[in-house]
Amino acid sequence: MTSSTPNTTPTASPRRAAVIGLGSMGLGMALSLQRAGFTVTGCDVNEAQAAKFATAGGEITPSPAEAARDADVLVSVVLNAAQTEAILFGPEGAADALPEGAVVVSSATMAPEMARALAGRIEATGRLYLDAPISGGAARAAEGQLTILASGSAAAFAKAGPALDAMAAKLYALGDSPGTGAAFKMINQLLAGVHIAAASEAIAFAARQGLDLRKVYEVITASAGNSWMFENRMPHVLDDDYTPRSAVDIFVKDLGIVEDMARSAKFPVPIAAAALQMFLMTSATGMGRDDDASVARLYARITGTALAKQPSQPAPKT
Amino acid sequence: MTSSTPNTTPTASPRRAAVIGLGSMGLGMALSLQRAGFTVTGCDVNEAQAAKFATAGGEITPSPAEAARDADVLVSVVLNAAQTEAILFGPEGAADALPEGAVVVSSATMAPEMARALAGRIEATGRLYLDAPISGGAARAAEGQLTILASGSAAAFAKAGPALDAMAAKLYALGDSPGTGAAFKMINQLLAGVHIAAASEAIAFAARQGLDLRKVYEVITASAGNSWMFENRMPHVLDDDYTPRSAVDIFVKDLGIVEDMARSAKFPVPIAAAALQMFLMTSATGMGRDDDASVARLYARITGTALAKQPSQPAPKT
Repeated sequence: MTSSTPNTTPTASPRRAAVIGLGSMGLGMALSLQRAGFTVTGCDVNEAQAAKFATAGGEITPSPAEAARDADVLVSVVLNAAQTEAILFGPEGAADALPEGAVVVSSATMAPEMARALAGRIEATGRLYLDAPISGGAARAAEGQLTILASGSAAAFAKAGPALDAMAAKLYALGDSPGTGAAFKMINQLLAGVHIAAASEAIAFAARQGLDLRKVYEVITASAGNSWMFENRMPHVLDDDYTPRSAVDIFVKDLGIVEDMARSAKFPVPIAAAALQMFLMTSATGMGRDDDASVARLYARITGTALAKQPSQPAPKT
Repeated sequence: MTSSTPNTTPTASPRRAAVIGLGSMGLGMALSLQRAGFTVTGCDVNEAQAAKFATAGGEITPSPAEAARDADVLVSVVLNAAQTEAILFGPEGAADALPEGAVVVSSATMAPEMARALAGRIEATGRLYLDAPISGGAARAAEGQLTILASGSAAAFAKAGPALDAMAAKLYALGDSPGTGAAFKMINQLLAGVHIAAASEAIAFAARQGLDLRKVYEVITASAGNSWMFENRMPHVLDDDYTPRSAVDIFVKDLGIVEDMARSAKFPVPIAAAALQMFLMTSATGMGRDDDASVARLYARITGTALAKQPSQPAPKT
């Protein structure tokens, strides 16, 4: 496919995409766009991540500005609002380089007010902005099977449509105001973070009582105490495998955003606050980059409780 | 069916059951036993509850001792360990009246050490004891579709078998030590209580941000932030209906047991502790007997947030 001609009808399919941020989510999204027929240019400050996309046949550029040139849709999949602002408006930022009428699909998790502010600045320049946080993990990103929680103008939805189709199995259109998608994402993160901390507390407490943890997993996942996170994360504890699928520090960040939002709204969130402290303690003891189920390891270490049947270190040779 | 002859083979079907405690769970269990062919005698200090069983064709007695006479299986479905002890060993208690070799199926939620203590006292008298906490709610109790988390001797399991079949869709046999069933139940209650509090915090915070709560429900139940309790309880909030299916004070009690167990084991449970405080605050403001989703109403009241689209009080007539 050739690139679309500028200024055709607003529903013409955009076929050139830029993806800024080629981490575990962004890389999968870039590959999904490529598979759907987009010409994709990627960019990441981490050269190793960028190289992975190049190896998969993608084009990489050294700056967001160069990636954005001629793009119909720019997907921003960086860590947070500050990084999103930097790749759009910082030195060699994408905003000025992006063709007029192109759309920024902004997928980093951030506070709603940040999404509204970024949307305002982008729209003031004649580009479109879709507040589009994502959910689903790296595997579903690679399969083009993400959930996207999107809000923005009808024009932004129309322009981003083919790219959203390529990346998402489920698209929630949550209204015409940027920030609404971000707000839904933060409600999800509040619950997800609390559920990981609660699952960790419960499984470690079960271990302390000498219960068979695989039986605990079987009973709880079939009972009213179940959560998506309990079911998804506790196998990491049972297998004593803390390879990061999603890291502890992600929830230090996301529950931190929840707390900031809540304090600013004078809204108490004591359960989320307690969960954040557990992620902080886990990070503080050096496990910030490990899998977020490591909160269970923190409970276990504090209390001298064994979580796994086998010791995690090899037995000494005799 | 006639009652079974004492001292036949241990697997002979017991056909006479006593059910002590005819609340929403016990009444359903008594009716399920009756439907399965048991002759059931029920007993409850609350005469209105006892009358419901009589209306359904059940026999009621004024004391646990009278209910227990000639029973092969006695099902205790009272509020807690203290009530269980009272109906077994208090004035007109069931323990001495129960035939030798009969089994006590003890379903009240309690700390494992209480279950072990009661089992020891019952077994010392030549009767059997099955630690058998239940899960599933009143509707499933009435249908004979409960989940039962049981532990106890092989003889206790064998003697209770037909009654368990009549009451449960799912029976977890969790080992031969009384107390193990109770411990599994408390792990489930820790999670269930935290999840109700977290769901309440999240839905009220979503309302404060002006989000469409029905859309929040749709998105969260399809996302990683979901829990069994979010999915089950938040419709009560959306419908502004706090008729108690399970009351706030149940979790004041159950998370209280979790805290007692944890403190006694020197095991920190900060998430469960935060959740307990929210149930206590909700109870303190007068909602203890309302549905446990009332924790969301507490957040809403504290913060002046509207949860339901319609006001819960009728509009004044003009």
